[in-house]
Amino acid sequence: MKNVIVGQSGGPTSVINSSLLGVFKTAKDRGADKVYGMVHGVKGLLDEQIVDLSTQIKNDLDMDLLKRTPSSFLGSCRYKLPAIQGNEEVYDKIFEILNRYEIFAFFYIGGNDSMDTIDKLSTYGKLIKSPIRFMGCPKTIDNDLNKTDHTPGYGSAAKYIAATTKEIIRDGLVYDYPVVSVIEIMGRNAGWLTAAAALAKGEDCEGVDMIYLPERVFDIDKFLERTGELLKENRSVVIAVSEGVKVADGRYVCELADHVDYVDAFGHKQLAGTARFLAGKVAEKYRVKTRAIEFSSLQRCAAHITSRIDVTEAFNSAGAAVKAAFEGKTGMVACLKRVSEDPYMCITELADVAEIANVEKKVPDEWITPDGTYVTKELIHYIRPLIQSEISPLWVDGLPRHLKLEY
Amino acid sequence: MKNVIVGQSGGPTSVINSSLLGVFKTAKDRGADKVYGMVHGVKGLLDEQIVDLSTQIKNDLDMDLLKRTPSSFLGSCRYKLPAIQGNEEVYDKIFEILNRYEIFAFFYIGGNDSMDTIDKLSTYGKLIKSPIRFMGCPKTIDNDLNKTDHTPGYGSAAKYIAATTKEIIRDGLVYDYPVVSVIEIMGRNAGWLTAAAALAKGEDCEGVDMIYLPERVFDIDKFLERTGELLKENRSVVIAVSEGVKVADGRYVCELADHVDYVDAFGHKQLAGTARFLAGKVAEKYRVKTRAIEFSSLQRCAAHITSRIDVTEAFNSAGAAVKAAFEGKTGMVACLKRVSEDPYMCITELADVAEIANVEKKVPDEWITPDGTYVTKELIHYIRPLIQSEISPLWVDGLPRHLKLEY
Repeated sequence: MKNVIVGQSGGPTSVINSSLLGVFKTAKDRGADKVYGMVHGVKGLLDEQIVDLSTQIKNDLDMDLLKRTPSSFLGSCRYKLPAIQGNEEVYDKIFEILNRYEIFAFFYIGGNDSMDTIDKLSTYGKLIKSPIRFMGCPKTIDNDLNKTDHTPGYGSAAKYIAATTKEIIRDGLVYDYPVVSVIEIMGRNAGWLTAAAALAKGEDCEGVDMIYLPERVFDIDKFLERTGELLKENRSVVIAVSEGVKVADGRYVCELADHVDYVDAFGHKQLAGTARFLAGKVAEKYRVKTRAIEFSSLQRCAAHITSRIDVTEAFNSAGAAVKAAFEGKTGMVACLKRVSEDPYMCITELADVAEIANVEKKVPDEWITPDGTYVTKELIHYIRPLIQSEISPLWVDGLPRHLKLEY
Repeated sequence: MKNVIVGQSGGPTSVINSSLLGVFKTAKDRGADKVYGMVHGVKGLLDEQIVDLSTQIKNDLDMDLLKRTPSSFLGSCRYKLPAIQGNEEVYDKIFEILNRYEIFAFFYIGGNDSMDTIDKLSTYGKLIKSPIRFMGCPKTIDNDLNKTDHTPGYGSAAKYIAATTKEIIRDGLVYDYPVVSVIEIMGRNAGWLTAAAALAKGEDCEGVDMIYLPERVFDIDKFLERTGELLKENRSVVIAVSEGVKVADGRYVCELADHVDYVDAFGHKQLAGTARFLAGKVAEKYRVKTRAIEFSSLQRCAAHITSRIDVTEAFNSAGAAVKAAFEGKTGMVACLKRVSEDPYMCITELADVAEIANVEKKVPDEWITPDGTYVTKELIHYIRPLIQSEISPLWVDGLPRHLKLEY
């Protein structure tokens, strides 16, 4: 039993492959024989879709490319393991496969849905007295994980959002007539990503005029009224709004529009059209030019603009999970703990997976302004260190180079 | 008469401020006393919204920031001068202002609509025997200008599109179920920008599966049929489509959807919703997950990812316009001429503005595949050199720094 296995689960981030590299390199350095990868997470594992990562990451250049590759290198899944009771055959199958591959440690890189997998597998492992260790590596652009100061993936998404918002603000001022730009940012229930639009403001940038998070009820009339006031004073009004904002009766704003909905395997609605709907309302009421801008998947895959802090923390927290597993820990997640504000310093700390699985951490109410149209300086101060420093792409023939799974 | 004036017109590009710098620096180097900027183009000029650029660009750092600043630094307009005959008072007003500011050369950075301004002003100047020279500096992400091999602004937009498309392609492969991603790219009548999606394909990237340009009639049934065939063989299908594609009866595809339309000052419809409409059709017919991604304004303002070739050519062609004006030329545009393919080399060449104003250059029919679903290798070979090399942002506190007009 000297091999380890690692999988990626849920939506990707720009640094999810830095976590993968952290598992691979730390496990190798600590003497693991084989480091296997699950292709498409635990769902692929059940079909024995497994690769030996040494056949994929062959040298230092591959490692540097992997760090700069967007999306989940191994592929991902949105598959939730069934409850243990009554479904023991699924668990037995997984443990049979893990035993056959001589796995002693299992790492899963994911968010709160994915940590449920670690929770269940480690619980079942204890039940059957398996020596296999199960560890979670936190990952999500949404930053909605409990017990960790922030999540790997969030800093890079925040950097992309802030940098692109700065560009959109400049662009919005180009003409001499009024323009209202509504930017739609990911975040179903937590406004962390949308809050990052606040970072745009600075010596060289006017910043966005309003920020709406899903933590507060969205009032369309008040939104229109406030936009009208801003239009009296500003040629360009830029508004950042979370895709997940809801009106008082609990419906998503985008549900008020006429459009197609999708539901993913976890029962989450696929939201889209919030910005378009609101821009239409503004155009209707004020007869001004409006623009609806959706950052869409770009905020989770724009690997050409990542935060070096984020890349480093993704690698380090994955490494800490490996170290803990080698030391016998199981059913835990390697979280980030901010130990100093100024200068910013973060260390890793283990947390019980049960405290993370299926729990969503929202933006604290006191970090949103009383009228719900902006965020406080405390929130900006919290995010700012996470977007610092850059990791430049490896440019080949004019484009960023990536590493592609050969499977 | 030792001063010059420069304006920016039409939609911005990522390098329109490199053209501005090219005018400023070359004019200063050649002995101009003041270099004035029109705020919001010729429309602002009529209101005497004029800045002395030396008060804005004060040192070498400002120059380097200006090159990296998205949107039109001076502000822009979509204002077309009226026909000369019967509107002489407008022209007399402009010449009165120019004479009062002791302007001997007038530079306008813009596309085919904006070159109409240079055409009319130089024509009127000859009529009234004014010594003022009027020169155009080509600019547009659309690359639809006549007489120039390509336009400054196109290369950076193409680089953004290709780099981001690569990231979206990786992201599309993350799950193990079928996904169809439809990317909507700018280009009302010319497919140059959409064609740049073809650059994504390479050793490390599968590329997009189909590319639809507005030069060919769009057939929704054939599109759906071909998408169905691709879905049989591919888990992820990625399609690049121009916002300007039209069906056989002449309607834009996005007009088939239920949405709000805007018309700009030139009478151009503001298009949006093509990708969303087509993704909806695919979802309806094949019951697969679809994603509609609009690059929207990002393709013209993503200054954090520009082509160095483009930046240099923007600066140089503006410089060539200044040189020509100092040598007595008027009513001309400083175009780019490709003098060698391998290695790529481009020089500047003057063209008569009348051959450029109001003329749209489309993608040649032979550069589109017979079935109209992709582009040929000749077109890819044409674009590739234009996205080469990078100009890195000046990062301050985690974000690209810009220069802001103080007016």
